[in-house]
Amino acid sequence: MTTTLITGIGELITNDRARGDGTALGIVRDAALVIEGERVAWVGAAADAPAADASVDVAGRAVVPGFVDSHTHLVFAGERSAEFAARMAGEPYTGGGIMTTVAATRAATRDELHANTRVLADEMLSLGTTTVEIKSGYGLTVADEVKLLEVARGFTEETTFLGAHVVPAEYAHERAAYVALVCGEMLKACAPLARWIDVFCDTGAFDEEETRAVLAAGVSAGLLPRLHGNQLEHGPGVQLAAEFGAASVDHCTHLTDDDIGALRDSGVVATLLPGADFSTRSLYSDARALLDAGVTVALASDCNPGSSYVTSMPFCIALAVREMRMTPAEALYAATAGGAAALRRSDVGHVAPGAAADLVVLDAPNHVHLAYRPAGRVVAQVWKQGIRIL
Amino acid sequence: MTTTLITGIGELITNDRARGDGTALGIVRDAALVIEGERVAWVGAAADAPAADASVDVAGRAVVPGFVDSHTHLVFAGERSAEFAARMAGEPYTGGGIMTTVAATRAATRDELHANTRVLADEMLSLGTTTVEIKSGYGLTVADEVKLLEVARGFTEETTFLGAHVVPAEYAHERAAYVALVCGEMLKACAPLARWIDVFCDTGAFDEEETRAVLAAGVSAGLLPRLHGNQLEHGPGVQLAAEFGAASVDHCTHLTDDDIGALRDSGVVATLLPGADFSTRSLYSDARALLDAGVTVALASDCNPGSSYVTSMPFCIALAVREMRMTPAEALYAATAGGAAALRRSDVGHVAPGAAADLVVLDAPNHVHLAYRPAGRVVAQVWKQGIRIL
Repeated sequence: MTTTLITGIGELITNDRARGDGTALGIVRDAALVIEGERVAWVGAAADAPAADASVDVAGRAVVPGFVDSHTHLVFAGERSAEFAARMAGEPYTGGGIMTTVAATRAATRDELHANTRVLADEMLSLGTTTVEIKSGYGLTVADEVKLLEVARGFTEETTFLGAHVVPAEYAHERAAYVALVCGEMLKACAPLARWIDVFCDTGAFDEEETRAVLAAGVSAGLLPRLHGNQLEHGPGVQLAAEFGAASVDHCTHLTDDDIGALRDSGVVATLLPGADFSTRSLYSDARALLDAGVTVALASDCNPGSSYVTSMPFCIALAVREMRMTPAEALYAATAGGAAALRRSDVGHVAPGAAADLVVLDAPNHVHLAYRPAGRVVAQVWKQGIRIL
Repeated sequence: MTTTLITGIGELITNDRARGDGTALGIVRDAALVIEGERVAWVGAAADAPAADASVDVAGRAVVPGFVDSHTHLVFAGERSAEFAARMAGEPYTGGGIMTTVAATRAATRDELHANTRVLADEMLSLGTTTVEIKSGYGLTVADEVKLLEVARGFTEETTFLGAHVVPAEYAHERAAYVALVCGEMLKACAPLARWIDVFCDTGAFDEEETRAVLAAGVSAGLLPRLHGNQLEHGPGVQLAAEFGAASVDHCTHLTDDDIGALRDSGVVATLLPGADFSTRSLYSDARALLDAGVTVALASDCNPGSSYVTSMPFCIALAVREMRMTPAEALYAATAGGAAALRRSDVGHVAPGAAADLVVLDAPNHVHLAYRPAGRVVAQVWKQGIRIL
C-alpha cells in the first residue's frame, strides 16, 4: 500500500494521554505521521519520521483528528426558516414543527433525499467532519423510515432508527398503536438498516414507559441504544439511558445532581448539542458541571432543519467554549474522542497507529484557533481514510 | 460596457423601502437585475427583464447586497490565542493585550503585513463582504502607523487613522506627550492616507479630554470622525460622537437612556460588534432598545486578533439575531445598509440602478437562512463591482 508522510506539523492532537504532553489531547509538537492506505501507520517527532512514498509538508500548522459528529438528522426535505424567524421573535421551541419536515420528507423521493443529504454531507466534510451519525425520524411510516435509512446508509455506517421521534399527527389519538408499530413492523423493517435505536424522550415526544418499550424492542432486534433526553425540561432520559446501558444520552440541558451521578457511574456519554441551544435560544447545557463530575462529554451538531441547522463542528466547539465554559482543549476532545465514545468507535476520534487516517489540518498554529476564530476559514485540509478530500 | 442579467432571483433584497414589499429590506420576489460594468443598471421583476450580453440564472436563490463591514483592524501581525484561552478560563478583557499585537506588527515588514491582510481580506470576500473599513492602530509610531495605512489602502478606500488606539508602553508615563504626537506629527503623516479619524474612548484607553483633542485635530486635518465608545463600561463616547457629528460610534454596549436619545437625535449610527461580545464573553449590546428608539444600527465584525478574530458577517448576523434580539431582516439591513450609513456611503449597501454591483447570492431561498444556518455554507456567489469573484 502507498504510504504518505505528513510532516511539518506544528501541533499534533492525538487524543492519547500517553503520547506527547501528558494532557488528554496528547499533544505532540513538531510532529509527523505516516498514512498507509486508510490507516495511520506511524506517529512521532518529525525528526524521527520514516521515509514514505509521498510527502506533504503542512508548514507548522496544527493537525487534529477528524471531527466525529455523533448526532444528526441529515436526511430530510424542505426547510423551516419561517418557524426559525418566529422563534427568534419570541415563540418557544416545542418540537411541534417536526411534522412540517415529516410532510416534506414523505413527499420526497429517495433520489431527492439523497441529493439533499449529499449537499449537507459534503458541507460537513469540508468543515472537517469525517464521521457522521444519521438518524431516521422524518418518515414515521414503515416505508418512509426505511427510505430514510436507505438514504442514510449511502453516507455512513452509523445509522440510527428513530421511529420514536414524535407521534405523527395521524396517530395523535392512538399513541399506543404508534408505539406498537414502532416496536413491531417498523422496527422489523428498519433494524437491518440501522446500528442504533433512539427515542426522543421528552415533553411532547415520548414518555418514560413508551421510551422503555421502544428501547427494549430495539435491543431485542440487535440494535444498540442511545437517547434524546432532558432537552426541553427535566425528565427520565438520563436514568433510562443508564438503565439500558446506552452509549449516549443527547441534549442533557436539564439535569439534576442525581442525573450527573448516574452518567458518571454508568459511563453513558453526555452528548451536548450547542447548535440546538443556539438556534432555539434555550439554556446551554452545563458542560462544566458534567466535566467536573467526571462524565464523558461529546459535542455534536444535531444538524436538522428545525432546531439546529448547523453543519459546522468548529462552530459547535466555539459555542461550547463561549457558552458552556469548556476549555478549547475540552471542546476539541469532546468533538473528536467524545463523539467516538458516543458511537463506541475505537478506530476514529484519535490519531495513533491503526486508527483511521481521518485528519483535519488547521490553517492555524494550534487548536485554540477553532474557538478563537469562530466561523472563519480555520479548516485548511481534510483527510478521510487516507485520502485528502479538501 | 458589457451587461450581465442575473435572473431567477427568488428573493431580492434591495434595502429600498419604496421598492418591492414596502419593508425596510425592499424585497422583490421573482426578480432579476442587470449589471453594466461595475454598477447595477436595472432592477425589477424577472418577467420584465431587458436583454443583456450575458445571463446568469441563480435558480430561485436569494440575492442580498454585499456586506459592508464598517469596523475592522485588519492589518496586524501575530496572534493571541493564548490570551483568548486565558480569557475563556476566566480572565477579563481589558484591552491590555493590544500591545502584544503592536510589538508583532512593528516587527513585521510591509510585505508581511500585506500578505497577512490579503488572507483575511480574501476570507471576508469569500464570506460576502464587499466593502471593508480598515483601521491603523497597531503601529503607534509615526512610521508604523504610516506603514499600516499604506497596507490598508491596498485593500480599501475606507481607511481610518487610529493612532489613539492605546497609549503605547513607552509613553505610559507621558500620556500627554503621546496625545500630542497623535495630534501632531503622526496625524500629519497619516491624514493623507486616511478618510477617517477614530479614537478608542474607554477605560484603559483614552478619556474624554484626550478623545476630544484627537477628534478635533483629525477633523482639522480633513478627516471624518468616528469613535470606539461605551464598550468596556459606560463613558462619554456616545456624547462625544454626537458633539462631533461622527458618522458612527462603535460597540455601544453600555448605554444610558440619554445616550440612546443622543444617538437618535444626532443621527450618529450605533455600530454593534457581536463578534467582540462573543469572543470577550461580555454583555451583548442591546440592539432592541436602539432599534425601538429609532437609532440607525450597523453590524460589523471588529476583526482583530485580540477581542474578535471574526471575518464572517453572516456569523455577526446570526449572533445579532440570537443574542441581540434583532430580527433576521433587521440584522441583514444593519450588515448592509447600516454599514453603508456608518461609512456615509450611498453607493453600497443597497441594490438599485447606479449602485455598485456588489452582491451576495445565497445558497438559500431567503435571507433568513443567514441566521437560520449559522456558520454553514450559506454564501453561494459573491459579486464585487460587477465581477463574480466566488
